[in-house]
Amino acid sequence: MAKFINIPEHSHFPLQNLPYGVFKPRGAQAPRVGVAIGESILDLAELAAAGCFQGSQVGSTQCFAEPSLNAFMSLGRVAWQEARGIIRSLLTGEESRLETDPDLRQRAIHPMSEAELLLPAQICDYTDFYSSKYHAANVGALFRSRENALTENWLHVPIGYHGRASSVVVSGTPVVRPSGQVAPAPGSKAPTFQPSAMLDFELELAFFVGPGNELGKPVPIEKARDHIFGFVLMNDWSARDLQRWEYVPLGPFLAKNFATSISPWVVPLEALEPFLCPAQPQDPEVLPYLRQQRRETYDIQLEVALKPERAAEATTISRTNFKHVYWTVDQQLAHHTVSGCNLRPGDLLASGTISGPDDGSLGSMLEMSEGGKKSVLLADGETRKRLHDGDEVSLTGYCQGPGYKVGFGSCSGKILPAYAFATEPS
Amino acid sequence: MAKFINIPEHSHFPLQNLPYGVFKPRGAQAPRVGVAIGESILDLAELAAAGCFQGSQVGSTQCFAEPSLNAFMSLGRVAWQEARGIIRSLLTGEESRLETDPDLRQRAIHPMSEAELLLPAQICDYTDFYSSKYHAANVGALFRSRENALTENWLHVPIGYHGRASSVVVSGTPVVRPSGQVAPAPGSKAPTFQPSAMLDFELELAFFVGPGNELGKPVPIEKARDHIFGFVLMNDWSARDLQRWEYVPLGPFLAKNFATSISPWVVPLEALEPFLCPAQPQDPEVLPYLRQQRRETYDIQLEVALKPERAAEATTISRTNFKHVYWTVDQQLAHHTVSGCNLRPGDLLASGTISGPDDGSLGSMLEMSEGGKKSVLLADGETRKRLHDGDEVSLTGYCQGPGYKVGFGSCSGKILPAYAFATEPS
Repeated sequence: MAKFINIPEHSHFPLQNLPYGVFKPRGAQAPRVGVAIGESILDLAELAAAGCFQGSQVGSTQCFAEPSLNAFMSLGRVAWQEARGIIRSLLTGEESRLETDPDLRQRAIHPMSEAELLLPAQICDYTDFYSSKYHAANVGALFRSRENALTENWLHVPIGYHGRASSVVVSGTPVVRPSGQVAPAPGSKAPTFQPSAMLDFELELAFFVGPGNELGKPVPIEKARDHIFGFVLMNDWSARDLQRWEYVPLGPFLAKNFATSISPWVVPLEALEPFLCPAQPQDPEVLPYLRQQRRETYDIQLEVALKPERAAEATTISRTNFKHVYWTVDQQLAHHTVSGCNLRPGDLLASGTISGPDDGSLGSMLEMSEGGKKSVLLADGETRKRLHDGDEVSLTGYCQGPGYKVGFGSCSGKILPAYAFATEPS
Repeated sequence: MAKFINIPEHSHFPLQNLPYGVFKPRGAQAPRVGVAIGESILDLAELAAAGCFQGSQVGSTQCFAEPSLNAFMSLGRVAWQEARGIIRSLLTGEESRLETDPDLRQRAIHPMSEAELLLPAQICDYTDFYSSKYHAANVGALFRSRENALTENWLHVPIGYHGRASSVVVSGTPVVRPSGQVAPAPGSKAPTFQPSAMLDFELELAFFVGPGNELGKPVPIEKARDHIFGFVLMNDWSARDLQRWEYVPLGPFLAKNFATSISPWVVPLEALEPFLCPAQPQDPEVLPYLRQQRRETYDIQLEVALKPERAAEATTISRTNFKHVYWTVDQQLAHHTVSGCNLRPGDLLASGTISGPDDGSLGSMLEMSEGGKKSVLLADGETRKRLHDGDEVSLTGYCQGPGYKVGFGSCSGKILPAYAFATEPS
């Protein structure tokens, strides 16, 4: 146990977790890398400046003094394991520098509540997969038909598309309702331009790439995890009416590129390893480049809560689990690179909406409302078929260990009214 | 006229052009920003170090000593015009520093043939549009049917999708033939994994974004050009067989993400302004946010040449023009941001394949071969329906002024054989 940091009983950030993030302590100018522990942040830039990482691989870099995790991500698993070991020792070791040096403790431990949490990485490419079969079938049935719910390729290809990296924002960033074109009304031939009237959330998990691969050199599936740094929660906000009109033939564009929220703390793969679990069997058998000796995913419990602006409290509207994905992260990464596509440190690869098998485990309002036909009942008696201005959506998730949680904290965002365009163009 | 730099008569890089790029002079370690002039490169980092930009906006930055144009791009049009004016004066002014200081001339002028030309910007987001109606109709007829060639939304929405930024490479980089899944053969239910057997090029132009916009704040169409720095040629290599199997419902992925080549010299908007010309009329009328008082594009002559490995010479297989696009760059930029999506300096927005109205003006082999039905005849008697290993595709383009060209140089790439996968997975 850390003797000098209080870790509340149900904290998402006990010693078993040690997730990385980027933050600014109160009053500081320069963002730096930190680790969440209980309700505090350990300032790795201060610890590095004090020589705590000397002799290790990160010790010869300035990677914790940077405003993003990219440099640290690029170092690879051996460096990550070494850094994690040092951080653990500092927190728990007998006579550790943190224990014996009160000045260092003062400089290197900040209350999380007083810090500004920033985007953990500079993201140059963001890819969104579509890896829950329950979700793909639900959405396919609504956008096409129950018979054609899964497209012909879905059981063979881990379908994904390139998303917009610039609009990935950190939890807490407000989300402006997007405007765009929607399909012509019945009887009309012309589309209309309007604020989206079908704004939705999507519950996802995403991982950051560590070391990349060279262009033209695919990553074999058995090596995929060497390229995965850690995971965050993601809300892939979606404007369903914009999407429906624009997505044929080249995929979603404006319907998704106005904001994608992620949680600030990146849970390292090491912290998730105790929660590996078998992935769904695949039928038909996939092509050799997608086959794994052990198909595994992670047992991560996930929840979605919605709080209307004037509501006293949030209502939990979904409880699901990451184990419900059909395509594993290893398959996603191997597929992404099989063409020769290069990944770079800090790239973000997301799961797609994580829906489970039953009504209470759906990852989007589109599915909960069956395409707008059914209302979702909230505490205080309000109902929803889509998101209203002022609504705040919060995702959370954790792995349950014996007596502790390895958690992701929260990924939240509140809907602001649409941008006010001039009524007529100049 | 520059007195100390020879500019050959048909050069793409006369004083009227002055395109920017990033390069390493022979023997130098650090990449820096330069300007192409005739067959030479003007080293802006050396000129800046010698104080030539003092008193101007760039003079207070180190932006020419950086390995990318992003910082310069972010400064905006006033800074660009000022820098362009200074560069012109240095090359042509009476008693300019370059004329009077032979040591500076020695340090600041490099033969282009001895320099390494690099990617001009760090690209964090790359978007590809689909703005030639001729191309969209040709491809739609092949992938769907002549009747459904243009999707219902095409005449209303400047269709685009997010491409892969990491695999944008500079002209000259070899292109490894991608492998991936192709649709089940007739009578089979399972797809196969193989090197693409339908590799293609796409002739495009792309522009780099200068100053970006804030998330949630759309750029009105009349301000779009303030955000455009300049243009390059682009070859959006495409694996048609991979594309056909994967693109429903979320768009192209592996079919495009293995390589996208661009020319090294970014032709600034200022150099293209004399070549503005009316854009195609649009019918039906578009929504107000896409309307322009003057719809303009640029009169840029474009050519595609193909050289098989053992051929003595390249064959020009297409001659077309950028004026054939239906959606203007202003419309693309306004549409991209209308949802609130933020652009950042160095983002790349591409036109999509530029095809003209007749058989000699098609921008892809898919169209030239009518989907593999017809052969394209090359010099030396070879024929092509798709690209073979060893084939080199070179794009070029220029604006014809009175007695001079404003050119783009060349964008070329040679196809290497597919990556050799182990025959069986481990």
